[in-house]
Amino acid sequence: MSHSDIITDRIVLASRPDGAPVAGNFRREQAALPALRDGQVLLRNRYLSLDPYMRGRMDEGPSYAAPVAIGAVMEGRTVSEVLDSRQPGLEPGTRVVAPGGWQTYAVVDAAGITRRLQFDGLPLSTALGVYGMPGFTAYAGLEEIGRVQAGETLVVAAASGPVGATVVQLAKQRGARVIGIAGGEAKCTYVHSIGADVALDHHAEDFAARLRAAAPDGIDVYFENVGGKVFNAVLPLLNDFARIPVCGTIATYNARGVTLPDPDRLPDFIGQVLRQRLTVRGFIQADFIALFPRFEQEMGQWLRDGTVRYREDIVQGLDAAPEAFFGLLQGRNFGKLVVQLD
Amino acid sequence: MSHSDIITDRIVLASRPDGAPVAGNFRREQAALPALRDGQVLLRNRYLSLDPYMRGRMDEGPSYAAPVAIGAVMEGRTVSEVLDSRQPGLEPGTRVVAPGGWQTYAVVDAAGITRRLQFDGLPLSTALGVYGMPGFTAYAGLEEIGRVQAGETLVVAAASGPVGATVVQLAKQRGARVIGIAGGEAKCTYVHSIGADVALDHHAEDFAARLRAAAPDGIDVYFENVGGKVFNAVLPLLNDFARIPVCGTIATYNARGVTLPDPDRLPDFIGQVLRQRLTVRGFIQADFIALFPRFEQEMGQWLRDGTVRYREDIVQGLDAAPEAFFGLLQGRNFGKLVVQLD
Repeated sequence: MSHSDIITDRIVLASRPDGAPVAGNFRREQAALPALRDGQVLLRNRYLSLDPYMRGRMDEGPSYAAPVAIGAVMEGRTVSEVLDSRQPGLEPGTRVVAPGGWQTYAVVDAAGITRRLQFDGLPLSTALGVYGMPGFTAYAGLEEIGRVQAGETLVVAAASGPVGATVVQLAKQRGARVIGIAGGEAKCTYVHSIGADVALDHHAEDFAARLRAAAPDGIDVYFENVGGKVFNAVLPLLNDFARIPVCGTIATYNARGVTLPDPDRLPDFIGQVLRQRLTVRGFIQADFIALFPRFEQEMGQWLRDGTVRYREDIVQGLDAAPEAFFGLLQGRNFGKLVVQLD
Repeated sequence: MSHSDIITDRIVLASRPDGAPVAGNFRREQAALPALRDGQVLLRNRYLSLDPYMRGRMDEGPSYAAPVAIGAVMEGRTVSEVLDSRQPGLEPGTRVVAPGGWQTYAVVDAAGITRRLQFDGLPLSTALGVYGMPGFTAYAGLEEIGRVQAGETLVVAAASGPVGATVVQLAKQRGARVIGIAGGEAKCTYVHSIGADVALDHHAEDFAARLRAAAPDGIDVYFENVGGKVFNAVLPLLNDFARIPVCGTIATYNARGVTLPDPDRLPDFIGQVLRQRLTVRGFIQADFIALFPRFEQEMGQWLRDGTVRYREDIVQGLDAAPEAFFGLLQGRNFGKLVVQLD
């Protein structure tokens, strides 16, 4: 098979955003694929995951991964099918989760392929959501940091999203009281339907007061995946020995850092960490990858038997990706945002 | 024995401080002791520990312990001798660590007595310092949160004090590179003498630059016991997966909270926690009390064989306590500050 015959449609980073990203930060291109070298595979990308962390990759400067270079294909995890292979064991037809990027075909190093998909009875796209990185983020963050106990109160924001909705359900499994926060009535109805004791709309004017009323015994675990005003409302309600797993701060991804005229709350925060013996710990799911096989087995079972429910927001075609991504950063998606590429 | 014969000299909280405490916040009194009830003991206090946490007890509002009431004896840990007892097992002559307070005699509930002292070869006063709460704070914070490994870099401030100096020595035992921070040349010389690889004077104009130069491989553990500018200088030097045990923020104990005109650094800090997968965890030594027997045994051995060294700053007489306490908050003591009462 000659790969020069295959043209990939792709979206590259054209420029770095100044605050919120805009369409002009991306450029749509077509390109011929390079020839396969040893250890590489040719992929047809079927689903592309859009995730908040991608906003960080668009900036220069320190993050937990290198930024996307100007002119390079936007990074992204894909569910893909192997079309051709120069890697023993990854035969054509194998379905994988890969760093396929915002494009329809990709040549990738086999070393970057994190998972082979052999599931029966579950949609392939779940490997990018509840049964993939976001679901595992929820699982590992609760298991290793949150450690919520029966009778404790847990708060999670973006609770209709793939991380938050999984946190809601796994915390309920453990017997916690769960307060899920989401934007708008439809999302709150959903959050309630998957088991949250209370679903709160963060658009409410009196959001902080409602949160206080919903947590009469205080908050023991705040699963931090959004930052901003939810974090601010949670802080005064934390109980002693509360745990804050930090896996995202989406509300500040677009902040430019120097335009914050408020008083510096950092010294008071560190004082609170001391007084209340708080644990604040950042993580990404890869830090706990040793847990993944157990997750894959348990979550697969829970999904098949309906114990854990999920919701996907699937948009059609590569061209829809930038607009869908902007919506993600503003909370306009409803469920795990995935681009169907084929 | 009639206790109405015994008059205790004592120092009570006269008023709450507005910022830094002043002499007028205290009042010297004499008082007759109440009769012993069942379960109580009469103590002669021999040494009184002065510690930064006492500043917090002078304020109203949330802390990890209730504030001292106006008119009540200032709280404090003492090494004391039992003079009379209505508690079986605490016979007269027993030496204990007790919540004896800023006074020469005390009647306390036996339940508040945390430790009996049966040591040979060590001064009694060490039960308030390296062989007591401060030493155990260092031990437990390193054991449970800092977990410094051989080859890693640890930074600790107030490194000539009883917590910091113990952290320096225990971290060296574990094979870490240790940067100790102290105020002034004499203290830095001492910090160097107990094994720190680098001793830095925080008064230096270019302190942040010196810290950066002293930590070419970054910082893996910051044992936070002072806050303020040391914390600020450490933040940009932290390595991924760094641990910050927080056991004190003395630099901000006197802050009144509303006069901080700087930009709000809290959102950026939480972003850094995420990006670098930091662990920030507040603790007080009592949280890890299950470790105390092991500490008592190991540290007793290290002190007797000279593996761990310590320094005490002993002032004479109850009347010297307020001034000594003000000095403590300004870093004027050199070594564990103890008031000899007898």
